[in-house]
Amino acid sequence: MTRRRAATRVGRGDRNVAPPRHIHLNVMSTQPFASTPEPPYYAVIFTSQRTEGDRGYAHMADRMVELAAQQPGYLGVETVRDATGFGITVSYWTSPDAISAWKQQLDHRRAQEAGKDVWYSDYHLRIARVERAYPKA
Amino acid sequence: MTRRRAATRVGRGDRNVAPPRHIHLNVMSTQPFASTPEPPYYAVIFTSQRTEGDRGYAHMADRMVELAAQQPGYLGVETVRDATGFGITVSYWTSPDAISAWKQQLDHRRAQEAGKDVWYSDYHLRIARVERAYPKA
Repeated sequence: MTRRRAATRVGRGDRNVAPPRHIHLNVMSTQPFASTPEPPYYAVIFTSQRTEGDRGYAHMADRMVELAAQQPGYLGVETVRDATGFGITVSYWTSPDAISAWKQQLDHRRAQEAGKDVWYSDYHLRIARVERAYPKA
Repeated sequence: MTRRRAATRVGRGDRNVAPPRHIHLNVMSTQPFASTPEPPYYAVIFTSQRTEGDRGYAHMADRMVELAAQQPGYLGVETVRDATGFGITVSYWTSPDAISAWKQQLDHRRAQEAGKDVWYSDYHLRIARVERAYPKA
């Protein structure tokens, strides 16, 4: 399994229609690194072990990346999963309130339920305040 | 490239000698999830893109996992890298001071320099205070 880059679909029926620019900028990126502002900001560290088989996972994952990028307070995401199905996804947010709102978003809540029941044999979710950041440069 | 689980070597010349128990417990684990206490504690989120070829990387990575596990304040690590060479490693610590001490550890400093020069085409390091945590349960 290779890392899923940010979603490249914005609705199956309208491939010839340019997406709204704010979606395009966030969702169509092929950059694996999130471009985040100066700290402080917040991180959701989601560590997970996938079950066998897709069972709708890839489509949901694309859709959640699209939806998250449209949420108020979203700053970016970094995600990687290896061939054993173990993965780490870190999403970045302006505030704990932005994270709470995303947690409560209806489609996301459905995905969380299915994640618990079907897609993940185990996971751990941590919410953290980023205090310092150092790019390579 | 598959995810490197915690190191299985404790010195190339002494495979028949049991390692000290505190090393054995931390380093020889095959659990991809870190077993962390109740928050608050600290996380170092290291996102990186590997250059081509090993060039001593795998050996260094094993050694750094061993060394980190012996540092005061170390709580655990979760790490994953995919076939494109993109990876996320999150290590957990009791305090910012524990992280600072690890950052200054001499062998680790040498590894940081080589990482910058040889092993990583890009990386981003973030230090964050974990405020809440939710296992799958």
